[in-house]
Amino acid sequence: MEGSVDQLAPERNKAEFDVDAMKIVWAGSSHVLEVSERIAHLVASDPAFRKDNRPMLGRKELFKNTLRKAAYAWKRITELRLNEEEASLLRVFVDEAAFTDLHWGMFVPAIKGQGTEEQQQKWLPLAHKMQIIGCYAQTELGHGSNVQGLETTATFDPKTDEFVIHSPTLTSSKWWPGGLGKVSTHAIVYARLIIDGQDYGVNGFIAQLRSLDDHLPLPGITIGDIGMKFGNGAYNTMDNGVLRFNNVRIPRDQMLMRVSQVTREGKFVQSSVPRQLVYGTMVFVRQTIVAGASVALSRAVCIATRYSAVRRQFGSRNGGPETQVIDYKTQQARLFPLLASAYAFRFVGEWLNWLYTDVMQRLQAGDFSTLPEAHACTAGLKSLTTSVTADGIEECRKLCGGHGYLCSSGLPELFAAYVPTCTYEGDNVVLQLQVARHLIKTISQLGSAKKPVGTTAYFGRLEQLMQYHSDVQKAEDWLKPNVVLGAFEARAARKSVAVAQNLSKFSNPEEGFQELSADLVEAAVAHCQLIIVSKFIEKLQTDIPGKGVKQQLESLCSIYALFLLHKHLGDFLSTGCITPEQGYLADEQLRSLYSQVRPNAIALVDAFNHTDHYLGSVLGCYDGNVYPKLYAEAWKDPLNDLVVPDGYQEYIRPLLKQQLRNARL
Amino acid sequence: MEGSVDQLAPERNKAEFDVDAMKIVWAGSSHVLEVSERIAHLVASDPAFRKDNRPMLGRKELFKNTLRKAAYAWKRITELRLNEEEASLLRVFVDEAAFTDLHWGMFVPAIKGQGTEEQQQKWLPLAHKMQIIGCYAQTELGHGSNVQGLETTATFDPKTDEFVIHSPTLTSSKWWPGGLGKVSTHAIVYARLIIDGQDYGVNGFIAQLRSLDDHLPLPGITIGDIGMKFGNGAYNTMDNGVLRFNNVRIPRDQMLMRVSQVTREGKFVQSSVPRQLVYGTMVFVRQTIVAGASVALSRAVCIATRYSAVRRQFGSRNGGPETQVIDYKTQQARLFPLLASAYAFRFVGEWLNWLYTDVMQRLQAGDFSTLPEAHACTAGLKSLTTSVTADGIEECRKLCGGHGYLCSSGLPELFAAYVPTCTYEGDNVVLQLQVARHLIKTISQLGSAKKPVGTTAYFGRLEQLMQYHSDVQKAEDWLKPNVVLGAFEARAARKSVAVAQNLSKFSNPEEGFQELSADLVEAAVAHCQLIIVSKFIEKLQTDIPGKGVKQQLESLCSIYALFLLHKHLGDFLSTGCITPEQGYLADEQLRSLYSQVRPNAIALVDAFNHTDHYLGSVLGCYDGNVYPKLYAEAWKDPLNDLVVPDGYQEYIRPLLKQQLRNARL
Repeated sequence: MEGSVDQLAPERNKAEFDVDAMKIVWAGSSHVLEVSERIAHLVASDPAFRKDNRPMLGRKELFKNTLRKAAYAWKRITELRLNEEEASLLRVFVDEAAFTDLHWGMFVPAIKGQGTEEQQQKWLPLAHKMQIIGCYAQTELGHGSNVQGLETTATFDPKTDEFVIHSPTLTSSKWWPGGLGKVSTHAIVYARLIIDGQDYGVNGFIAQLRSLDDHLPLPGITIGDIGMKFGNGAYNTMDNGVLRFNNVRIPRDQMLMRVSQVTREGKFVQSSVPRQLVYGTMVFVRQTIVAGASVALSRAVCIATRYSAVRRQFGSRNGGPETQVIDYKTQQARLFPLLASAYAFRFVGEWLNWLYTDVMQRLQAGDFSTLPEAHACTAGLKSLTTSVTADGIEECRKLCGGHGYLCSSGLPELFAAYVPTCTYEGDNVVLQLQVARHLIKTISQLGSAKKPVGTTAYFGRLEQLMQYHSDVQKAEDWLKPNVVLGAFEARAARKSVAVAQNLSKFSNPEEGFQELSADLVEAAVAHCQLIIVSKFIEKLQTDIPGKGVKQQLESLCSIYALFLLHKHLGDFLSTGCITPEQGYLADEQLRSLYSQVRPNAIALVDAFNHTDHYLGSVLGCYDGNVYPKLYAEAWKDPLNDLVVPDGYQEYIRPLLKQQLRNARL
Repeated sequence: MEGSVDQLAPERNKAEFDVDAMKIVWAGSSHVLEVSERIAHLVASDPAFRKDNRPMLGRKELFKNTLRKAAYAWKRITELRLNEEEASLLRVFVDEAAFTDLHWGMFVPAIKGQGTEEQQQKWLPLAHKMQIIGCYAQTELGHGSNVQGLETTATFDPKTDEFVIHSPTLTSSKWWPGGLGKVSTHAIVYARLIIDGQDYGVNGFIAQLRSLDDHLPLPGITIGDIGMKFGNGAYNTMDNGVLRFNNVRIPRDQMLMRVSQVTREGKFVQSSVPRQLVYGTMVFVRQTIVAGASVALSRAVCIATRYSAVRRQFGSRNGGPETQVIDYKTQQARLFPLLASAYAFRFVGEWLNWLYTDVMQRLQAGDFSTLPEAHACTAGLKSLTTSVTADGIEECRKLCGGHGYLCSSGLPELFAAYVPTCTYEGDNVVLQLQVARHLIKTISQLGSAKKPVGTTAYFGRLEQLMQYHSDVQKAEDWLKPNVVLGAFEARAARKSVAVAQNLSKFSNPEEGFQELSADLVEAAVAHCQLIIVSKFIEKLQTDIPGKGVKQQLESLCSIYALFLLHKHLGDFLSTGCITPEQGYLADEQLRSLYSQVRPNAIALVDAFNHTDHYLGSVLGCYDGNVYPKLYAEAWKDPLNDLVVPDGYQEYIRPLLKQQLRNARL
């Protein structure tokens, strides 16, 4: 890889496993590894994709630069005739949020999923060639999570065979859609369908927003950018927008009519296509987000791990070098669980990918039986993995001490660009409440003909789980998968049952659900943690080639589980799944696992196979030459263009010379 | 206050206590309330102190604007003849990190604390008039927490009676000092004192960095800014700097000689002034940081609370308004503990202020007996309150949903500007390890003549605490101060004793300390939480006038304690202080407390008395007119200067028109 002398070579030599084999495990297959590596290096080696200057650019410059990169990326994609997989990886490695994310990730899929055959034939070729650029206009200034509360209206006018799209209030302004503010020519607009004064609920419509000739907003349309967001660079490359309609007319055939239709006569008709298909799309999108969580966390962990091996502080003996901070147990106890989480999220993401395929096959066969469970499960995993990742990136930043606060560490931007994931595609708390609702329902149906399926199957063994007492007697017992699974299943089941029992004390169930919602969220989290632990264990039961690879993953799996056990010890103890002594034994085992992982830490983050370009961090550079790079980076700041800063004559000199009285300030 | 129709009036009318009386409690006295209010409004009403445009400014513009504000603030301070208290409050309310913070907060105090009488007479008048501007150059590129590891040297040259300051390596470059990069003319430089080849450890020196004529760096000195830091605006108004010395000579009398001296002959002499004075300064600085934590957290909580009362989502019945999100239990369970923490930190900060006075009086009387305990206690409280505040600000941002991600919410900048507090003046983990060391020492001395004092006095009742079992039988029992104190004391004592026992199993104590450091940190945190709970309870035992004020504070104190009990339930259960049933009863009481606080929430954040200017948040504005302000704020973004964005001709149009092939990108 990049760099001169490899400062981290001694660390790499310590590794007790085959890093190349681990790279394949992380990538998912040698094919994906090969393609990813090829595309990542294509991007990394092209100066047009430089991104280290992003935090220093003002908003306009930053945005214009994103427009350039997006156009250039598309040019390269067509020149090199990249296939869909390669093109999408290229956009990933360019690593700059842009209107194209929404065009490819939301606009095109929405037409595919909700458009009729004719609509797809009309719109998809235009979108595929980017002759039109689309975004996804759902949320409004006053309405986010509650889609059913949207205020924008689409009123059918039978005289002209058109819909009239209108923003009746300030709070009905479309607000947040990415790509909307300055770029998109079209949008999928969600609006209340009104026919003859009757409200048929929220439906999707394709609306043209800007002229394809001069890019000016069409009559009746007001569009703008909603302003700066958290962080330097980060998501400010995106033109999240505001949009208001003043009685804008669109043809009737621009309502997305795969599921519901409006006829020429103004009759509202449900098609034979099942509404549940929408949930299939949600499963897909959220599965992508889980996969993205593992990548984002892996970047932060890679930076913090490498820097922790370079950084030395305290512990010098007789003038020798100080101790590497990665050797401090406090550092390990914060860093290694995040390393383990990155791997855990990777594997649960892989499994969700399988689940999506399974769900879609069943849907096409008319089998909706697993859908509620699959939907709850992806919602919960989206919530859990993104919350942990957001906090984990910030924890990694803190693990880098003072220097983590510099933009050149890459961590501030990674954090700022990542955190919206906790809110979009379902607010993380709202999602866990959906999971909880599903769990309570599952419990209420126990004993009926409806058996719990998939990730809730353990409720089928509820009686046994309510009796469960861990039989751990020594620390190493905690390394056994069944011991861990038993404790996590019993804890999750008992948390759900306890809150279900409390709920039953309320005469009004909805009131009870409100009152106990914080407990419900905790039960849902316990359930989701069990899923991740069990999928990690399942992964370990497959064939994993490569010297020492499986052993490393076993250690990481144990760290992931035992760290959670420590963190949620109150759950495990109060539900009586384990004793305090067993808790102490778990902590003891955890300390020993940290020592086992320590020599492999650098190799375990090397296995993520991130290029220096993609990491974008002087602290995390592959060769560990941190200090010269930090030093060099500093001088690039615009403030260093001048030795004596702009403003000296007006503001500093008069201050020093006691001449402020007459100064104009 | 500001604004037109008060959207939050219905909320304010619900309050069950005297808000004006609470304002005095929060401020500390009616005098402080009066001065703060006067100065806050002085700043808020002066357009020269406008700060809403900060996130949009590029680095140079931003920095120049800070220079202007600093000069203008000084002009106003002198014109209005503000006293020291007023001047310092004015800088607080201007709310923009600047070189003046270091000049007044570190440079001047360092000369006062470490300079001899003559040095003070020479340098302080210059500094007080700002005829020189100083900073505090301690940390280096390779050295942060470990001050003893600094590499910069100050070698005494007996021939010329000078010190030669030198940066021998890249990692010895001074790195991070605020105000250094572009403004300071002088610095307190920490360097290893070398006399005749012998190293006398790290000492402070006054070095001139820039010419007072033209501001150019003096010969042999290289200075620059270290580059962009986390966030928009935020700490980028500060010129954190890098500084290298190439054999720069300063006169011998510029070593700060209050504690150690170098004579004309090159003899190193310790003065009679006790070294412990240095700890007095640390107690002072960290006490200020704790007070600052309560303010920063109160700002975030104020924004999130007001917005939660304005924002409505879900729960509409028959087309009526949706539910205020503050009425959701999940929102309350995240928000109200932070509200309680802000008050808790306020009172512990007040107490620390008393502690500092007490320590200084004792020091002057030659009594060093309470110093180690006071030092440990302030270190631990600095660590705990700043960590909770940093996380709390981000939690408040998430509690504001999507809109919290906009800079106009004020929360991104508040967070980004706050987080370095977790690292500077002692990394938070390193500090808790110092606390732990003190606790272990305290335990080891039990039974000796050395009695535990101050916040460790409870170890004097160790036998009793090891026997403790909570006698809670019903939820309301948890409202009794003694019940809460008993459980927190027993938990803290047992955590410390458990780790002390584990330590004793190691033949090498230092090795044991390393191995068990994560447990030691947990014991230290438990101890610090006990301090905060007990100081809150002590506060409630004083006379607190005003209708309903004490009752509200009692609720907040209970919420603070019971929330911690819930969060650390594993501790309380595994140490056997409480039973699982008693844990459930605490949760039940907590839910009931949330309901009691709910109608008072807006009034409780009004009591912080923040102006809209100081809050800097459209979501947190006093009158609750959130949506029109959000909408108006969006249009101020530079991207909205043009309807068709810059870059359309070069990058968007060729894309849409399929003309990229020949485009120059």
